[in-house]
Amino acid sequence: MVHIKKPWIFTASCPSKLGTVDVVTRFMAEAGNYVDEIHSFDDHVSKRFFIRIEFQPQNEAFSAKQFGEEFEPRATEFGMTWELTKPEHKPRVAILVSKYDHCLNDLLYRHRTGQLNIEVPVIISNHPDLKALAEWHDIPYYHLPITAETKPQQEKQIIELLDQYDAELVVLARYMQVLSPWMCDQLNGKAINIHHSLLPGFKGARPYHQAWEKGVKMVGATAHYVNNDLDEGPIITQGIQTVDHAFYPEDLISKGQDVERITLFNAIRYHIEKRVFLNGSRTVVFSS
Amino acid sequence: MVHIKKPWIFTASCPSKLGTVDVVTRFMAEAGNYVDEIHSFDDHVSKRFFIRIEFQPQNEAFSAKQFGEEFEPRATEFGMTWELTKPEHKPRVAILVSKYDHCLNDLLYRHRTGQLNIEVPVIISNHPDLKALAEWHDIPYYHLPITAETKPQQEKQIIELLDQYDAELVVLARYMQVLSPWMCDQLNGKAINIHHSLLPGFKGARPYHQAWEKGVKMVGATAHYVNNDLDEGPIITQGIQTVDHAFYPEDLISKGQDVERITLFNAIRYHIEKRVFLNGSRTVVFSS
Amino acid sequence: MVHIKKPWIFTASCPSKLGTVDVVTRFMAEAGNYVDEIHSFDDHVSKRFFIRIEFQPQNEAFSAKQFGEEFEPRATEFGMTWELTKPEHKPRVAILVSKYDHCLNDLLYRHRTGQLNIEVPVIISNHPDLKALAEWHDIPYYHLPITAETKPQQEKQIIELLDQYDAELVVLARYMQVLSPWMCDQLNGKAINIHHSLLPGFKGARPYHQAWEKGVKMVGATAHYVNNDLDEGPIITQGIQTVDHAFYPEDLISKGQDVERITLFNAIRYHIEKRVFLNGSRTVVFSS
Amino acid sequence: MVHIKKPWIFTASCPSKLGTVDVVTRFMAEAGNYVDEIHSFDDHVSKRFFIRIEFQPQNEAFSAKQFGEEFEPRATEFGMTWELTKPEHKPRVAILVSKYDHCLNDLLYRHRTGQLNIEVPVIISNHPDLKALAEWHDIPYYHLPITAETKPQQEKQIIELLDQYDAELVVLARYMQVLSPWMCDQLNGKAINIHHSLLPGFKGARPYHQAWEKGVKMVGATAHYVNNDLDEGPIITQGIQTVDHAFYPEDLISKGQDVERITLFNAIRYHIEKRVFLNGSRTVVFSS
Repeated sequence: MVHIKKPWIFTASCPSKLGTVDVVTRFMAEAGNYVDEIHSFDDHVSKRFFIRIEFQPQNEAFSAKQFGEEFEPRATEFGMTWELTKPEHKPRVAILVSKYDHCLNDLLYRHRTGQLNIEVPVIISNHPDLKALAEWHDIPYYHLPITAETKPQQEKQIIELLDQYDAELVVLARYMQVLSPWMCDQLNGKAINIHHSLLPGFKGARPYHQAWEKGVKMVGATAHYVNNDLDEGPIITQGIQTVDHAFYPEDLISKGQDVERITLFNAIRYHIEKRVFLNGSRTVVFSS
Repeated sequence: MVHIKKPWIFTASCPSKLGTVDVVTRFMAEAGNYVDEIHSFDDHVSKRFFIRIEFQPQNEAFSAKQFGEEFEPRATEFGMTWELTKPEHKPRVAILVSKYDHCLNDLLYRHRTGQLNIEVPVIISNHPDLKALAEWHDIPYYHLPITAETKPQQEKQIIELLDQYDAELVVLARYMQVLSPWMCDQLNGKAINIHHSLLPGFKGARPYHQAWEKGVKMVGATAHYVNNDLDEGPIITQGIQTVDHAFYPEDLISKGQDVERITLFNAIRYHIEKRVFLNGSRTVVFSS
Repeated sequence: MVHIKKPWIFTASCPSKLGTVDVVTRFMAEAGNYVDEIHSFDDHVSKRFFIRIEFQPQNEAFSAKQFGEEFEPRATEFGMTWELTKPEHKPRVAILVSKYDHCLNDLLYRHRTGQLNIEVPVIISNHPDLKALAEWHDIPYYHLPITAETKPQQEKQIIELLDQYDAELVVLARYMQVLSPWMCDQLNGKAINIHHSLLPGFKGARPYHQAWEKGVKMVGATAHYVNNDLDEGPIITQGIQTVDHAFYPEDLISKGQDVERITLFNAIRYHIEKRVFLNGSRTVVFSS
Repeated sequence: MVHIKKPWIFTASCPSKLGTVDVVTRFMAEAGNYVDEIHSFDDHVSKRFFIRIEFQPQNEAFSAKQFGEEFEPRATEFGMTWELTKPEHKPRVAILVSKYDHCLNDLLYRHRTGQLNIEVPVIISNHPDLKALAEWHDIPYYHLPITAETKPQQEKQIIELLDQYDAELVVLARYMQVLSPWMCDQLNGKAINIHHSLLPGFKGARPYHQAWEKGVKMVGATAHYVNNDLDEGPIITQGIQTVDHAFYPEDLISKGQDVERITLFNAIRYHIEKRVFLNGSRTVVFSS
């Protein structure tokens, strides 16, 4: 069996300009880094450049620190923001849930089997229901109930917990609460939500019921970054399933769970594999 | 090779009630009709019953007229509307187009090869562009230009032509005009439109541009019956394709053509095979 | 929200003959059973008839026993085998596994949340690895190791356990053993296996490696009944995923898990909802 | 509307080695070529490197000739084979057919509407049936009947015609003949065939009948390069459709046509957009 060593991942983005590719690839060559795969894309509308490289350092003395010191001056010339991700990096992903457990169960399964290369330092919920599932995986579970009155305080607690557990990414795995603008600001760009419709269709509450009313023949799910505009954050990926007249709303809810969890999983995987770039209100995703 | 004789098709619908199936199937048995396939569905929300049967009469003397005379009294008891379609029936389908020809070309191809068992007695357009294509298929082509002022008159001409050519179904194969309420009324329930989005998402003009703006990762097409509410008629079927950041709006337009034409074809096929039933603002489709 | 009562399910099959539908539907009507849904199909090649009906008895005194006593004489006339399934019936499904847990985890999740309406009385494995997962679900787990020498004896133990736990269906959820002919006979028609290829392509061992060698652009999974011809049992359903050049064999293995588990779930669901009929070496599946 | 200028396309392949990316991207930068998009892939099994770049020359004096003279020495060092494709290049694609016209009709439609940016200099068939279709598109049509005796001579005629019409690519659009080894050699690597199964499943004749016999629930199509091993040439892309028990073999044939033509179209598009690379008996496809 071929054993492929996990690569380092380099990602960068900057305004479009002649030479953006070369400033990166030349540096890679000079540093003796073996390139496994490149994707680059230059968006003619937003006038931005995006690149993702998987590489294997050939030099035993390779260090992220030295890479940074040497590359930063070149990046600066292009106004380039960039990031280097180690093969052994395991992002710390906090999960927020309510009562539905299909997404949580799926993520924890992939976490414990290594299919999703993450740490899950904490699970937070406004309900106590999923505590046993968290405990079986030895993950701290916080039950923070919420009412209209306690909402500001509950959200503050969540943010403190995310901070305390050093979460790099937050996943709203069917967390059935409308976040306050303050909370959205706190999570802006570092939280992924799964919505159970093909956004922007059927925004807001009870999307499967809306879909049923309209008699659509396909329903889906959308994984997107949280921003300060409810259900309008940049879309990462979407999934779909075919339905027919014999699906009542509760059937849509039940059947939609597979699409929801796979769509959420894909979004998280793309994110942690550094395949997703913000591009205004849209995204660039170098999927595999 | 198995040669399956084309069946007769019986379809019916009525308010839900005990015995709806039996009144039909008993009649079939008594008449000596061999049943190839049944689909029935009783909608618990709309409280309506739907049934479709493919059958082969065993009695040489079988006639639609006699079937009707004998069945009608039983149907009346259940408030049942029903229809009998002969194996050799070729529906007369008029096609309305503008300049885009991908749907028209596809339909004419399937028409001339027999994949779509229809007559196409007439093609009507507000542009002259597709005349040659119509002529190669020996189908009369009417160029009826339209302006804001001439719209009422042009629509009247269309309705007259549909009447003159005895069209049983009208297909709007990317006919890029907003129909007047009068025209919608005329076509209500007997015209199928193809819209290039997953309705009700991206209603109205330039849906691919709307989709691009939102950064969606899937675009689609919707075939629906025309009613008097623009882009809101009952949905028959929908199709989908995956897209990514590298699709500019004009790429979406180009790539969407395959989904549009297959979705429209499926809707027409379902319709002429009597698989589609109106169910309020929704449809029941016994697809195959 | 619409609450639909779970229906009774009637299924039957017999040689093709005029009147097969009527003998069933007339009985339903006479017994005062309200029909929610019918699918029937008459296969012109195998000359067999298949029917599935969902119904709600209207008569409070309805009993399966009485149904049987009254219907059996009519069935006999047609050589019809039939089955009646109560709404509250929970089939007892035994699961066989080896080390891979993606299918088992998925099935147990759907079992505990009620998405899959089954009992899981016992899990049997040739490895100890998945014991903890079984225990968390309070399901007895038997570790029956196997070697070339102990195979006959181990298989006998399995069959005894299936008997002891009164299993109505056996699911081979990636049980990585070639069953002996004796074992196949024991399980004939009452066991479902998931094979990780689009059978009959890539039969036998290491199908993902075979697929990689051939450079295919799609890989899939097949759920089929076990019969006495390895990987040749009647196919129930198949699933697919698109792959590309960047998938090494181990990537195919990892990526294939989602298709495998959903395909297996669908097959089990079709089976317990009585949607699957054997039709020679093929199946009739009235899917929803 | 964004108007994106058609790019130049550079493609290359060579044995894996440190610096393969840099030798290309550095040259692009030095030549003042603006890079729109890069895909590169280094295959750890075959130890080969593949790259595809879309770029816009910024230098008005840019010429393919000069590019070649300057790049060739660098390519030689890496044993790199490479190709430069002009934006205005329209490949000359000859089409071979028999009687089925669904693929031909589709290709000619995409050809005449510009969706497929090709010239079709000649259509060759062993039957006269599709002459009218060719003529409507003003394309020379050669009817070269074939018998067991005349096969060598007929194939020689075809090769001469391909030569005479200067065909760069040959498409077997359901050309229902088994090519001789000599013919395969002539077409090796420059002809695309569409096979109506998911190869390597159901090789050889009547694949839909084979599929039906096996009771599969999915059938598909495979576009592959012709090589000297019948139905075993490197696969470019595959398509799929779901089927059920109600599809008789002739239904599969009819329903399969949409998958066949879209799969063939995709393969041709990938090929002419220089997205396909041979990689031993497999391919690398940088699809979009």
